[in-house]
Formats: sequence, structure tokens, C-alpha cells
Amino acid sequence: MTYCLAIAVDDGLVLCSDSRTNAGPDQVSAYSKMHRFPVGDTRVFVMLSAGNLATTQGVVNQLQRDIKKNAEVSLKTVENMGEAAEYLGQISRSEQQKHATPKGQSSFNPSVTLILGGQIDGEPAEVFLVYPEGNFITTSEHTPFLQIGESKYGKPILDRIIMPKTSIAVAARCALVSMDSTMRSNVTVGPPIELLLYKKDSYRLDHHLELQAEDPYLLELKKMWDDKIKQAFNELPGFKPSLFKTESIER
Amino acid sequence: MTYCLAIAVDDGLVLCSDSRTNAGPDQVSAYSKMHRFPVGDTRVFVMLSAGNLATTQGVVNQLQRDIKKNAEVSLKTVENMGEAAEYLGQISRSEQQKHATPKGQSSFNPSVTLILGGQIDGEPAEVFLVYPEGNFITTSEHTPFLQIGESKYGKPILDRIIMPKTSIAVAARCALVSMDSTMRSNVTVGPPIELLLYKKDSYRLDHHLELQAEDPYLLELKKMWDDKIKQAFNELPGFKPSLFKTESIER
Repeated sequence: MTYCLAIAVDDGLVLCSDSRTNAGPDQVSAYSKMHRFPVGDTRVFVMLSAGNLATTQGVVNQLQRDIKKNAEVSLKTVENMGEAAEYLGQISRSEQQKHATPKGQSSFNPSVTLILGGQIDGEPAEVFLVYPEGNFITTSEHTPFLQIGESKYGKPILDRIIMPKTSIAVAARCALVSMDSTMRSNVTVGPPIELLLYKKDSYRLDHHLELQAEDPYLLELKKMWDDKIKQAFNELPGFKPSLFKTESIER
Repeated sequence: MTYCLAIAVDDGLVLCSDSRTNAGPDQVSAYSKMHRFPVGDTRVFVMLSAGNLATTQGVVNQLQRDIKKNAEVSLKTVENMGEAAEYLGQISRSEQQKHATPKGQSSFNPSVTLILGGQIDGEPAEVFLVYPEGNFITTSEHTPFLQIGESKYGKPILDRIIMPKTSIAVAARCALVSMDSTMRSNVTVGPPIELLLYKKDSYRLDHHLELQAEDPYLLELKKMWDDKIKQAFNELPGFKPSLFKTESIER
């Protein structure tokens, strides 16, 4: 399993991913799911991936080949993030189709779900979620984040905290808390955690962190969050005896 | 969708369920998913249900018929909660099979997943989760709760708070917080919320509440929890500048 998320706030983008890859519980390893593509001085792209690892690597290679070979369409040529998402969707579909088996013949699933974030030359910084079918969605004012993989455990905190006016630093902290809740409940999501903070119009992808399980900041965040949740819970109003009216139940 | 949960602590049981039933988003209604079966003075049963509504009603009717007709096996005759779960599994399977269609002919799914809680005459108070196949599991010291339906959003708070020594009142508050997180993230889980607190050896099912959406206690809990989560989040340690080492990325 995987958990990746991308947040688009007014000041820029935050992207976060786990690194656990497994082909069955007896074959677990760590692979980065965050792929950075700086292309020239005024365009940057980051891709997050969930799904088949071979397909993901195929997609990354194809994106890089297209850049290197100055293909007709590549991350170098697309004019805005929507166009980039469309291009990525096509690459992803064709990689998946290479290894698809005829229906009913195998349960092998080559599909990948991707997130693409970035900014192109004066256009807004945006994130897109690209489905296995190649179609895609972006964020909205009411839902300024996208998630792929094991998304449910970490969604409530994002729903409560993230708004367009949230700062990049706060959004990044929220991404780590969301990741922590997910790792706690699903062992197939695991460290190292990668985090990228992109300030809009900077065209730089160097605010990148790779946090190991024993990273002191991650440990502090985890411990304090656990303590504070328990404290918050303990301060909630208790039951009032008046809530229960003794009822007679038919026996 | 549905969200039901059952908690077994040292002092007794807490069961909680939502009431939203839908056959597509244009056909939404409210049905109780908590079914109480008081049987004589020293045996009580509560069943929670997720899945096909017709099957659920069929199961409830069969359980009641067996009690009324003094069937060879019924909730009146089973000797412990494990036996009760086994009996419920058989009833559930046979109800599902009545309406199953031959493979490949229809996508209709008659399956139900059930939780059975209760206590029989001096035996421990227990809860069981009965799968559609009729097999079942109970709680453990490390996992003193069971969930059915939309279980992921509400699991992290249970993981953090619930232990065998947690009091019934605290477990009940935690169940409501877990339900609140779920309703916030999944609109197909909705009020009224039913809550039942069972004190062990009481053999009474009258500590039962049905909380409407506008219930003052539920609203207070919801509002305070939201405020406190935000406050707890805001008090977490922020990023330290030292975390970022400016790296050079290959362009």
C-alpha cells in the first residue's frame, strides 16, 4: 500500500509520500514515491505514485526520455499544468497497456494512480490527480488537497485544518500528522517519509526532506500529537445522567 | 454505507450505530441498525448490522421466530456468546443464500456483516463480528473493539483511547467521537446515532440513546472536538529551519 498527498494553498504546494512497497507481506522494501523533474529555470514538476512499481518506473523513464530527446510533447513543452496532467495520463495509459493481460487470464494489475504538482512559467502552481484511465482532477477552494493510496485514515485532519489561506509550513505539519495517523493504522504505509515544500514562483524543488522513522522531529510530532489528542479527548464533556431515560424494553 | 462499532471493556460493552440506509444516492432513508433481544432475566443480546437491508430484516425476523417458537436452537438456548455467534452466522448464511443469484447473472449482493454483543447467565459479556460467510471473531486485549461498514475514518481515535481498563462512559464518548469523524468524511453515514451502554452482569439493555443530528450533547461534543483538535494541532512544534539543507538538484 501507499499513502501520498498533495496540498495546494495560496502560497504554494506541499507534497508528501511514504516509501513502503510490498508485493505480499513477505516482500517489503523501500522505494521513493516522490519523483522530481526540474526542467529549466521556470518550470518544475513533482510526481507522486501509488500502484504498480514497474509501471511507475516505466512512466518516470518515459518522462525523462521525452525530456532528453526533445520529444514533440514533453515536460519541457507543455504550456500549463493541465496540459502536463493530460500528457502524464497518456504516458501512464500506454505503460499500463504494455503489460495488461487479456481479460480473465490473470489477476495482475499494472495500474497506477499519480499526483502531479508543479508550476510553469507564470502559470499558477497546481496539483493534479491522474487516474489509471488517464483522466484527471485538480483541487478546489473547498478541497485544496488530493490523496492517493490509503487515504481514509489521514483525511479527517486535512478536512479540519487545510484551507487555501493555510501557510505552507502549517500545511506541511498537517501533512505529517495525516501521514502519522495513516502509518499507525496501516502497517503497509511506512517510512522514510518524503516531504516537499514548494513556494510559488520560486521554481525550486530543494525544500525537500526525507524523514527516517527515528527522525527526532517526526518522533516529537508523533509523541506530542498522541498526547494532545488524548488530552483533548479527556477534556470533552462527559455524559449527563439526564441523557438516559430508563425505558422498558419488551422482553 | 454504514458505520457500527462495539467496544468490550472490563466493565461491560458499548455499542454504537448510525442509521443511514441508501440504495443509490437518490434513495436515502433512516433505519435502525441496532437490534435488541432481551431474552429472560439472565441473557441479553444486541445485534448491529451492515449490508443488505432485506437480509438484515430477514435475520432479525428469524431470530425472533426461533425465540417465539422455542426452536431447538435459538437465542434462548445457546450457552455462551460464541455459540450465539455461530448460530447467528448460520441464520445469516441461509438468509443470504435464499436470494443469491447464479454467478455472473447479476451484481446483486445480499451479504451482511453483523456484530453480536451480549451476555449469558454468568458467562463473560462479549462482542463478536460475524462475517457474511458465517465465521466470526471476537475482541482481544490489544484490540478491544470491532467495527463494521465504513471503519477507517473512525479507527485512529479508537486505537489511541480504548483499552480494556477504559470505563464504559469514556468508551461511549470515544464511540461518539469515532462516529463524528466518520460522518464528517462520509455522507452516507448519518444520524440518528444509537448508543447502548451495557454494564456487565446487569442483564439490562435500557441504557440506550438515540441521538438526532441536532441533539445538544452531540452538537457540543462535535464542536468541542473540532476546536480542541485544531488547538492541539496549532500547539504542535513547527518546522525548524535546520531541517532543510539546501540541496542541489540535477536540472
